[in-house]
Amino acid sequence: MSADLARLVTSLAQRARAASLVLATTPTAAKDAALAKLADLIDASHEPLLAANAKDFLSPDSNLLPPASRERLALTPAKLTHLAQSVREVITLPDPVGTELEAWTRPNGLHIRKVRVPIGVIGIIYESRPNVTVDCAILCLKSGNASILRGGKESFHTNTALAALISQALTAADLPADAVQLIPTTDRAALTTLLKLDTLIHCIIPRGGESLIRYVAENSTIPVIKHYTGVCFVYVDREADADLAEKILVNAKTQRPGVCNAAEQLLVHAAVAEKLLPRLASALLAKNVQLRCDAASAAILAKAKLAHTTAAPADFTAEFLDLILAVRVVDSLDTAIATINRDGSAHSDTIVTRDEAAARRFQASVDSAAVFWNASTRFNDGFEFGYGAEIGISTDRLHARGPMGLRELCTYKFVIDGTGQVRG
Amino acid sequence: MSADLARLVTSLAQRARAASLVLATTPTAAKDAALAKLADLIDASHEPLLAANAKDFLSPDSNLLPPASRERLALTPAKLTHLAQSVREVITLPDPVGTELEAWTRPNGLHIRKVRVPIGVIGIIYESRPNVTVDCAILCLKSGNASILRGGKESFHTNTALAALISQALTAADLPADAVQLIPTTDRAALTTLLKLDTLIHCIIPRGGESLIRYVAENSTIPVIKHYTGVCFVYVDREADADLAEKILVNAKTQRPGVCNAAEQLLVHAAVAEKLLPRLASALLAKNVQLRCDAASAAILAKAKLAHTTAAPADFTAEFLDLILAVRVVDSLDTAIATINRDGSAHSDTIVTRDEAAARRFQASVDSAAVFWNASTRFNDGFEFGYGAEIGISTDRLHARGPMGLRELCTYKFVIDGTGQVRG
Repeated sequence: MSADLARLVTSLAQRARAASLVLATTPTAAKDAALAKLADLIDASHEPLLAANAKDFLSPDSNLLPPASRERLALTPAKLTHLAQSVREVITLPDPVGTELEAWTRPNGLHIRKVRVPIGVIGIIYESRPNVTVDCAILCLKSGNASILRGGKESFHTNTALAALISQALTAADLPADAVQLIPTTDRAALTTLLKLDTLIHCIIPRGGESLIRYVAENSTIPVIKHYTGVCFVYVDREADADLAEKILVNAKTQRPGVCNAAEQLLVHAAVAEKLLPRLASALLAKNVQLRCDAASAAILAKAKLAHTTAAPADFTAEFLDLILAVRVVDSLDTAIATINRDGSAHSDTIVTRDEAAARRFQASVDSAAVFWNASTRFNDGFEFGYGAEIGISTDRLHARGPMGLRELCTYKFVIDGTGQVRG
Repeated sequence: MSADLARLVTSLAQRARAASLVLATTPTAAKDAALAKLADLIDASHEPLLAANAKDFLSPDSNLLPPASRERLALTPAKLTHLAQSVREVITLPDPVGTELEAWTRPNGLHIRKVRVPIGVIGIIYESRPNVTVDCAILCLKSGNASILRGGKESFHTNTALAALISQALTAADLPADAVQLIPTTDRAALTTLLKLDTLIHCIIPRGGESLIRYVAENSTIPVIKHYTGVCFVYVDREADADLAEKILVNAKTQRPGVCNAAEQLLVHAAVAEKLLPRLASALLAKNVQLRCDAASAAILAKAKLAHTTAAPADFTAEFLDLILAVRVVDSLDTAIATINRDGSAHSDTIVTRDEAAARRFQASVDSAAVFWNASTRFNDGFEFGYGAEIGISTDRLHARGPMGLRELCTYKFVIDGTGQVRG
């Protein structure tokens, strides 16, 4: 088995690499033509796609999924219409390839241009949602990258059906079908092989749960851009506006609690905790948020007769992804900053304050991808940034930090013109 | 041993992380003051530094080094004066931290600024040359990063003496001495521990031979920026100017054959091979270059009675780092491009031609970090690019590709100002 599987994965990666060299110089119009064809094919293929999806639900694995995962796995005509629409939206986005990022001339006359180019071959490792298959394929295609997709076993039939449409669309637009390939097995050994093909694949993006991401990071010799946990903080400063604090905190915690940019941790300045905490807690309790408190915040809430529990130490570094919030009182802005840098995940953090100097110090010193002043952490997102699309939110610092759109799927090369210059 | 060593390395990394948070907001003047102090200390410490270096030459390991490595390891008063000078040059370079890379306002009023910030903690793993200790430390410091240095065992005493001066300079400038730390052992187990500390260290840069770099890439769970091999090509097109071709080829091959941007491979268009190859070969032979030829080029050189050997297949993908050149005749520009993309290392490649259309096609299609037209491959270099300094030449595609200067030692963060915005 294993040698055959390794050969199959290696051959697939070699074909992806060859396709990437074609895609790198493919004009925008050809890429957009493939996208237009794909959108039409999705619209015209509801029946076979829904049938493939139904097949996934027949597998024993699907019965083991929690209800939320089953819901994410399930395709509906409405979801397919939306999927085709998202493909058409990518057509309208500017092609990032070929943009001149910088240009300068050296004293010796050499003219250097730094030009944006595709990364090459990108491997995407993801879990159950089948729309990720299309999302990742189209963003890689528009940015001139070949992609190798490895989805979860729960959605294998749906992914296979979608990949067949992508392949058909590429061929219809005279582009190499190998530009987007789905690994045709969910055997873990195929993934392990893939993660070592560092001469053929240039970047791995894992999207999914922590254990998947950790497995990829530990086993890959290919550079990985992780999309990891978000332990995001709301810090209510001594100069906070109470209305703003309540509005931002409730939004950051409850608007969509299962995502990485949702708030998990609240810090309140001691000078205003007595006054503000009961109000903030009441608003959160009204939204069914559980509060896990340190001693100081517990005392205040006890006095105000508001429901809460005592936090365990692990709660103060936890990503709950649920209607749970850890609460602490801090004695200063500096303590807030140090707490966030120690216990957070450098993802998205916000300060609520009327004091601009405090906000600027917070934004300079909190070592996170996105540091907000008087706004919800939920805005750390490619669509909210205006990127038009995103492949995810990088929790790494190298290459891309925060939202990754089409530009972040590119690297650059130097194009240098001379007239016979040599080094002395 | 092992548990103690792991604790020591972990504690060192924790202190580096703490220092990095201080450095991230340290003003330029304080960083420059530490650099100025270091330069003075080097000038004033020739005696102890030369004594430490002599101690390295007493170790049995140093006798096993090839002469070129012994020469690189040896400090001299002239080298120390040059080292202090290079520290003073970094003072004159602009501080990359804090530059606003982009700024925009969203329709909801959120103001987003993308600001350049240090990466955080950078681990540098390198081999024998002790000046790398200072070079890496000062570039990391100027760019606001804490650094952890792990040098080779041959230069351990010299590195330790230099690191002590760096520590002294940091303290004199009121900066945390933990901002630059040398791993105080050359035990391999310390390196293995270090490479797994992915919550404390943000980037690993290996500099050295292929086996060191491979070891680091395979064992690190921290993102790695590799400085790997350069299998660089000179392609002499059918429209090449003969004088330019000779001048560029001889320079790319012989000006410094042991470095990554030196040419290793020559391709000559069949239409001009008969005419140009004998002339190019004569110029190279005059510089003692061995020519390893394919059948077509061998036939031409045999006819011209010029010395050459028949290449083995491995020669066509080799990085010789020596006065050796592999030579092939190609039937077209397209074959040249395909050959380079298949057999090269995507480092630095050049086309010699008078035909601008051919040059543009070559530059667009050759998938390398630096693609030259009528210039030597040797110009892919931070100093030649005008960066003022370089930590190396990245052979990776993510984050930094090609020369890495101060800016490439930085990442970015998003600083976002709101007035109470929440997501709907």
